[in-house]
Amino acid sequence: MNYRKLGKILGKIMILEAILMIAPLVVSFIYNETFKYKLSFLIPILLLTIIGFLLQIPKPTRNNLYQKEGFALTGLVWIIMTLFGALPFVLNGDIPNYIDACFEIMSGFTTTGASIITDITKLEHSSLFWRSFSHWIGGMGILVFVLIFIPESNDGSSMHLLRAESPGPQVGKIASKMKVTTRILYLIYCGMTVLEVIILMMDKPIPGYESDQFFISVVTTFGCAGTGGFGVLPGSIELFNPFSQYVMAIFLILFGCNFSLYYLILIGKIKDVFRSEELKAYLGIIIGAVALIFVSLIVQIRNFPQNYTTEEAFRHSLFQVSSIMTTTGYTTTDYNAWPVIATTVLYLLMFTGAMAGSTAGGIKLSRLVMAGKGLYINIRKLINPRYVPKAKFEGKTLEQKTINDVFAFITLYIFILFMVIFLLAFDPANGQTVQVVSDAGSYEVTHGFTTNFSATLACISNIGPGFEAVGPYVSYAAYCGFSKIILTLTMMLGRLEILPVIILFSKRTWKKI
Amino acid sequence: MNYRKLGKILGKIMILEAILMIAPLVVSFIYNETFKYKLSFLIPILLLTIIGFLLQIPKPTRNNLYQKEGFALTGLVWIIMTLFGALPFVLNGDIPNYIDACFEIMSGFTTTGASIITDITKLEHSSLFWRSFSHWIGGMGILVFVLIFIPESNDGSSMHLLRAESPGPQVGKIASKMKVTTRILYLIYCGMTVLEVIILMMDKPIPGYESDQFFISVVTTFGCAGTGGFGVLPGSIELFNPFSQYVMAIFLILFGCNFSLYYLILIGKIKDVFRSEELKAYLGIIIGAVALIFVSLIVQIRNFPQNYTTEEAFRHSLFQVSSIMTTTGYTTTDYNAWPVIATTVLYLLMFTGAMAGSTAGGIKLSRLVMAGKGLYINIRKLINPRYVPKAKFEGKTLEQKTINDVFAFITLYIFILFMVIFLLAFDPANGQTVQVVSDAGSYEVTHGFTTNFSATLACISNIGPGFEAVGPYVSYAAYCGFSKIILTLTMMLGRLEILPVIILFSKRTWKKI
Repeated sequence: MNYRKLGKILGKIMILEAILMIAPLVVSFIYNETFKYKLSFLIPILLLTIIGFLLQIPKPTRNNLYQKEGFALTGLVWIIMTLFGALPFVLNGDIPNYIDACFEIMSGFTTTGASIITDITKLEHSSLFWRSFSHWIGGMGILVFVLIFIPESNDGSSMHLLRAESPGPQVGKIASKMKVTTRILYLIYCGMTVLEVIILMMDKPIPGYESDQFFISVVTTFGCAGTGGFGVLPGSIELFNPFSQYVMAIFLILFGCNFSLYYLILIGKIKDVFRSEELKAYLGIIIGAVALIFVSLIVQIRNFPQNYTTEEAFRHSLFQVSSIMTTTGYTTTDYNAWPVIATTVLYLLMFTGAMAGSTAGGIKLSRLVMAGKGLYINIRKLINPRYVPKAKFEGKTLEQKTINDVFAFITLYIFILFMVIFLLAFDPANGQTVQVVSDAGSYEVTHGFTTNFSATLACISNIGPGFEAVGPYVSYAAYCGFSKIILTLTMMLGRLEILPVIILFSKRTWKKI
Repeated sequence: MNYRKLGKILGKIMILEAILMIAPLVVSFIYNETFKYKLSFLIPILLLTIIGFLLQIPKPTRNNLYQKEGFALTGLVWIIMTLFGALPFVLNGDIPNYIDACFEIMSGFTTTGASIITDITKLEHSSLFWRSFSHWIGGMGILVFVLIFIPESNDGSSMHLLRAESPGPQVGKIASKMKVTTRILYLIYCGMTVLEVIILMMDKPIPGYESDQFFISVVTTFGCAGTGGFGVLPGSIELFNPFSQYVMAIFLILFGCNFSLYYLILIGKIKDVFRSEELKAYLGIIIGAVALIFVSLIVQIRNFPQNYTTEEAFRHSLFQVSSIMTTTGYTTTDYNAWPVIATTVLYLLMFTGAMAGSTAGGIKLSRLVMAGKGLYINIRKLINPRYVPKAKFEGKTLEQKTINDVFAFITLYIFILFMVIFLLAFDPANGQTVQVVSDAGSYEVTHGFTTNFSATLACISNIGPGFEAVGPYVSYAAYCGFSKIILTLTMMLGRLEILPVIILFSKRTWKKI
């Protein structure tokens, strides 16, 4: 293990985190918050800077990183970022418990959006900003951010890091001319973020929050861009005007697209965009899911408590499908009270996730399309042993090796899912009833298997809210410390697509070879 | 497609079914049932015999079967057996609806044990016998039964058929000297069945059912041997004496073992038995699961309605673990009311199933052990690309091809699971509340996602009862016809391990090549 090189990169990341934390510090000054809040950001900034510089001092003996070192470093970076990123909440008292604070900021960086906060109105602007800003940072990847701005990383190492952090089975095109392309992608990301803020500002302010419109627009956009989902108002997005809800739904769909498609548009290859099989699957599933939920809401309007108008039914269907499929987790209504068809569709979308190369989590559509083709090939071979598969995906031949990797990934995903569900079964909160108050009225849910199942799924797929006792109007606060640590690691497993985390915690990684 | 050969084998199977149906006919005579009941078996027997002989007339041009023909035939046989096997229930009026009757008998043949009957006491002895007898027949496989008694099948065809019908990833040793070995296995199966009946008869009779002790012992043993789970008394096995419940729990564990282990014992290779990794995993999981559930029941005794004594808690833990893990589905208590740890363990056991080569369903432990080893190899390779895997399973080198097939199977299993859950979401029963009356008291459950999830899992893994509205004290009667057909096919998919059913319904299978 090349510890010095590891330390060097880690140090840079820590300095970067210090720089990023200046933003909430500024917010704290703007809103004239008490000295405690300013200090709560200043202390971590100083700590990060000092440790960061100290780690730069030893000269590395070898300048490159092996693949396993890259993977382990990626995992380590996310843990360090979380351990320091949680400090402000503890120091200013908005989240006094350190485990809770780590859960919250890991949920932020991994763009999950699961929260342990029961009353969002008690948080100060700076805390709310840091929480949502972490979505925006985490969406594109922390390491990627460093790699494109630090000149040194021109050896093979950066490639391994990018591969470990990028969502989806292939990095492909982006990795070849990495630096230039990644910068362009970041510019697109920033551009879309600014555009969404501008459009949201065109809406009339939310009644009661007139003075905060800009702040709300910015932090909510962070949540959309990173497909994170931390809300800043009670009831997530429920209070927003319909116009804003439509705008956000559309931006969510856009942020769930593979960003290299935007790059293709920029360089004029628009035809290539519409040739993307994953895009077709993505849009197809969105249209299908929205239609299905909309019809089910209209037809079964008597079977659930919300009395939607037709427009509302459509808006909520569109919003929840975009929000869940892009693994964001924003909510405009209490979908937990919806008819079974609607909730089942949402459950399935929690598995699929959106496109690879986007800011979204989940298994990713490209993997599912490849798995489907792979299964078809396997069955064809069984029917006719002489069958020679000619399957293609996105114009390239689909290798058996790739298919096998996808099968292995899905198997691992399911294994981890059930392992975490098993661990959550020991939580003392199980069996307790929780009172939910939402636009569906007031009703009781029991913390049980469904809660744990959906909580695990919502964390590994980086969605945020689940069903029942972790539904859209309930927080994760009821879980004990042990379960919160497990779920925090689950979010990380989901965001880094499992392998970097396993490699980080594998004994062999740290053995001398 | 070799239609004539297909017809010939199919015809033989139909004659066999006619012969098997003589057993319930005899029962009908013994219990002096009305003429309607005797006729309800006589008519199908005549129909099966006539059609069976007619199908024998055309001489096949080619005497062997290709692999795909073998697979398709296996699927077809199970459907034909079900379509005719359902007739008695409709004719004697015990299950008037034909779809219901098909569901019930497919549940029997596939050893699922899911039932649509709401009041078991209304069925006559002959109906109860036929229902449970189907478990015993289905446990070892319908085709296997034919193959070992009919001399003709000495070409390659029988091998394909056996492969299509045998549970588990490998047929291996049994297939090589197939006929002799299979006969020995059937003898072991019969021997164990007789032994269980004898031991059950040693218990004192169940109060109120004194005259029926022999009948009850026989049909309940059928359910154990096939790991099926159709009960013949109200509340499944609840009314049985503790001694019988212990006996059944132990026999269930024995029937969940790979039958080739008994063969090894018979030929004196006892050391080889204890070298089996799958057996170690099987016994290890049983001990772990029983311990975990037992402790959780004792510790959390106030959190659920049943007031068990320590002995009861142990007995119910042991019984439910054996019953669910071997995918039988017999119940001695309402586990739906248990604490979340206990229900979560049962959920996980529903996925694993028992050993390959047993009469149990599910993914099978051997597959899960192989998948675990495969994932370990994949990760080791990533950490150290020069790593050369030396993984073994049951003493043989574990090939990458086998691992990939296991990954593909698990992926396909999960895909089908979610597809069926999706289809069940359209059922009109969703959202309705169901009143459950059990040893846990009287309580309400809602037919929703959990119901559909556990129903699908219970059908694809051939278990029977699930949770909530398909829990141990509720039947599948609430589902509509469409859902019942879907679940009937799901049971078949699970029993034949998916591929034969897909091949049967694939257009390409029936195309001339």
